[in-house]
Amino acid sequence: MSFADAPAIAPLNPPRRILLGPGPSPVDDRVLRAMSAPLLGHLDPLFVRTMDEVQVLLRYVFETNNSLTIPISGTGSAGMEAAVANLIEPDEEIVICINGYFGERMYEMATRVGARPIRVECEWGGPVDLEKARAAWRASNASVLFAVHAETSTGVLQPLEPLREIADERDGFLMIDSVTSVGAHSIGVDRNRIDACYAGTQKALSCPPGLAPVTFSDRAVDKIRARKTKVSSWYLDTTLLTAYWADAGGGQRTYHHTAPITMNYGLHEALRMVAEEGLDERAKRHQRNHRALVAGIEAMGLSMQVDPDYRLWTLNAVRIPEGVDDASVRSRLLQEFDIEIGGGLGIFKGKVWRIGLMGAGSTENNVLLLLAALEKALAHEGYRVKDSGVSAANEFYSVN
Amino acid sequence: MSFADAPAIAPLNPPRRILLGPGPSPVDDRVLRAMSAPLLGHLDPLFVRTMDEVQVLLRYVFETNNSLTIPISGTGSAGMEAAVANLIEPDEEIVICINGYFGERMYEMATRVGARPIRVECEWGGPVDLEKARAAWRASNASVLFAVHAETSTGVLQPLEPLREIADERDGFLMIDSVTSVGAHSIGVDRNRIDACYAGTQKALSCPPGLAPVTFSDRAVDKIRARKTKVSSWYLDTTLLTAYWADAGGGQRTYHHTAPITMNYGLHEALRMVAEEGLDERAKRHQRNHRALVAGIEAMGLSMQVDPDYRLWTLNAVRIPEGVDDASVRSRLLQEFDIEIGGGLGIFKGKVWRIGLMGAGSTENNVLLLLAALEKALAHEGYRVKDSGVSAANEFYSVN
Repeated sequence: MSFADAPAIAPLNPPRRILLGPGPSPVDDRVLRAMSAPLLGHLDPLFVRTMDEVQVLLRYVFETNNSLTIPISGTGSAGMEAAVANLIEPDEEIVICINGYFGERMYEMATRVGARPIRVECEWGGPVDLEKARAAWRASNASVLFAVHAETSTGVLQPLEPLREIADERDGFLMIDSVTSVGAHSIGVDRNRIDACYAGTQKALSCPPGLAPVTFSDRAVDKIRARKTKVSSWYLDTTLLTAYWADAGGGQRTYHHTAPITMNYGLHEALRMVAEEGLDERAKRHQRNHRALVAGIEAMGLSMQVDPDYRLWTLNAVRIPEGVDDASVRSRLLQEFDIEIGGGLGIFKGKVWRIGLMGAGSTENNVLLLLAALEKALAHEGYRVKDSGVSAANEFYSVN
Repeated sequence: MSFADAPAIAPLNPPRRILLGPGPSPVDDRVLRAMSAPLLGHLDPLFVRTMDEVQVLLRYVFETNNSLTIPISGTGSAGMEAAVANLIEPDEEIVICINGYFGERMYEMATRVGARPIRVECEWGGPVDLEKARAAWRASNASVLFAVHAETSTGVLQPLEPLREIADERDGFLMIDSVTSVGAHSIGVDRNRIDACYAGTQKALSCPPGLAPVTFSDRAVDKIRARKTKVSSWYLDTTLLTAYWADAGGGQRTYHHTAPITMNYGLHEALRMVAEEGLDERAKRHQRNHRALVAGIEAMGLSMQVDPDYRLWTLNAVRIPEGVDDASVRSRLLQEFDIEIGGGLGIFKGKVWRIGLMGAGSTENNVLLLLAALEKALAHEGYRVKDSGVSAANEFYSVN
């Protein structure tokens, strides 16, 4: 009677990888245990309380009082699309700073929702060229300025104050990608007067991918309320989502979609762990392990792609030495040591490795193990390290 | 230094509810255990294999050989939006049969992506009015006909053959919502020549919400490839998703977004359980428990909203007797028995209860317990049942 015989597929038994790539990051067992709790209905009063608590915790990590602070029910890219699809109307101009892969992605998304994006082309691996950004802003009628706080493709941390200053020249809206910074580098949404900001769960928050925290300033919400056109995506419409999340300013709750219950359990626990550690302590930990890694990398004779002033603590772009095969090293790390690191994206493909030290992955143990494993993998490629990266990192840790 | 003190939020300890509402349905512990496995990177060869296996299993439950058969990384509504956003271009006509809440939602989504939707207004609680649908189809230039296979808002199962016949009058595309049927009622995507079909994970597949299985016929893929405009949503663009899921016909894998690893573990195990049971057996189980419930409901003197010919096995719409308070009964079931049932949506609000028997929730135990608990909750409202629902169901089970 059936269409076909049932396929015989074996159960999954994934090994415990050490996730030191561009994300997902390792997830604490506490979070996985929280996700194994029995499901509540999405309208159950106990789940509604969970939704309220998730919003409180998200405001903490975004450092904001914004009412509209919720997890979008999709991955980081869904948060990105929610930001641009809601804040911009068709035919509106938006100035997009592009210094890596994700600025390029925003350009593509802005085009698709019918906006008129204006490109600010900057060098990959460096911060935004502020003069260019200012010139583009002044030459345009854009109401929104966009940049990436933490470029996962290049390892660059973008200072936000100068961008706020540019947008302030005519009371513009500042939209920021913080996918790889939130939970490590302070994003300071209120301090920096960011109007729309989105993150992912699978980076420094150390929750599995599947939700995209977003926050919008009250000004941004007013702009969205005054739209002349409906948001092209029903699924990502923040006005409908506000009515569903209620605590986001909607009062009475109105059914929208079925929230991903289990993912929200996970995010709740992951955010609780951030709150327990405290944002400041968490930032210090990420900075310390990043610096130890850099000490090790440089001792070995390798070099970092990004200038010290603009390095992310979460994502370390290391130049691949000449004569060393990118894929072969990464494959050896994975097969022999169960360690995942990332390859380059876009123009950095084959040029850099991306080593993530994010959330639960940012530990002294991981730094030492990675340096040890990398030394061996490089040796297989005929590359002899200058000095021991492990010794350099150990030395760093003993005095920092 | 930090913005605010960290909020003190207690850990979640959700009770084990018996989920007999419109979804989410109960999730087997096997699925939750699969989700607690350590995370793989989304480019890890072992995760890539998982993605391939999920596609094989999805083809089995959709009863299709369609290459493009993948889980969208969002909930059922994201699948709905993916279907209409990809298959329809701006200014194209689409005939939308509306006999419940979810037809109405599709109308809204179609409007937002710039299509010109044509409404076929049908009675809530009944199937599509085929004469009206045919007339609308003939009077239009629409290339796509849409209907809901399983209307979660009314409990109606829509026969698909007559819709296929109507669309065939000029080689039209048939788009079907199967959120609440897949895994219980046979959807027969190839048999019924459905061109675009989407589902949710949290109904008869008994996986937590968070992914939306979709499948597109080769004809639909050709139509999408021939689009003159880009899909407004980058996140839901099936052409980009095909390149990422590769086995969906894309060859070399191209990074798109970070797939929700843990949710895919869960879906993999939930689909394995469907395959183990077999679609036919699973259909029989759903039908049997539905019929037992109806026997009990009718013995008690209550009545079903939907005509016997069109009743879903997964979602039972029961008329609320006069004088009985909707919310009070549902609240008592939840507080006293940990049983969740659903209230009415839209025009059925306060008029019907929606009792879900989906996936792992469709069991003899749940039917008997629900009937017993409902009898008590009704007594509290001063409603005396005619005969024992439990006895009627027991009798049904003993001979069926």
